[in-house]
Amino acid sequence: METVIDAIPWNTDGLITAIAQQHDSGEVLMLAWMNREALLETLTTGQVCYWSRSRQTLWRKGESSGHRQRLVESRLDCDGDAVLLRVDQQGSACHTGRPNCFYNAIRKETVEVITAPLSH
Amino acid sequence: METVIDAIPWNTDGLITAIAQQHDSGEVLMLAWMNREALLETLTTGQVCYWSRSRQTLWRKGESSGHRQRLVESRLDCDGDAVLLRVDQQGSACHTGRPNCFYNAIRKETVEVITAPLSH
Repeated sequence: METVIDAIPWNTDGLITAIAQQHDSGEVLMLAWMNREALLETLTTGQVCYWSRSRQTLWRKGESSGHRQRLVESRLDCDGDAVLLRVDQQGSACHTGRPNCFYNAIRKETVEVITAPLSH
Repeated sequence: METVIDAIPWNTDGLITAIAQQHDSGEVLMLAWMNREALLETLTTGQVCYWSRSRQTLWRKGESSGHRQRLVESRLDCDGDAVLLRVDQQGSACHTGRPNCFYNAIRKETVEVITAPLSH
């Protein structure tokens, strides 16, 4: 596993972009960041851990809220600077209590807040 | 539309992270970046245009390959620094010719190249 992680072209801050997607519905839940330690912990424990850029600390998703993300599968993209985490989300992914973070639909002059899960 | 764009907390490079998702299947296609001009063009024309960080130029997706992305809906996340583009992808999203860019599944010691579309 360390072999894979060593091959990642970490950005200048030592981070990779991470997309969390609900594995069965395909709903895109959130976008966050991981450093080497966070990705290694996620792959090892099967519980998603990010790097909080604002707090500059490991962010074990759901540690306080209980809204954990269990890792189902992880995939690197073609150039290795983004990872797609297919997860099983417990509770709401967004800190606002919404199912996912992408609830602001861009309309012509405004943003419309969408409350329903992303359908497709 | 400019009102919405003006409110985005662009990063220090003037960029926002963009996730492209096939609108009907939910497949996550790719992750890329947009600057103000790229996002405005995307919202105005309905054809997705990114900012190429490597080439430092606007990247009109599919302009040479024909593998365009028609915008169906765009959504900002809770803190406004990521946008989810729900698109209709023509042809393959990835420059490798694969349907999406996330084809490298992380296994214990290796990366396994997945050829099938992301199922869920």
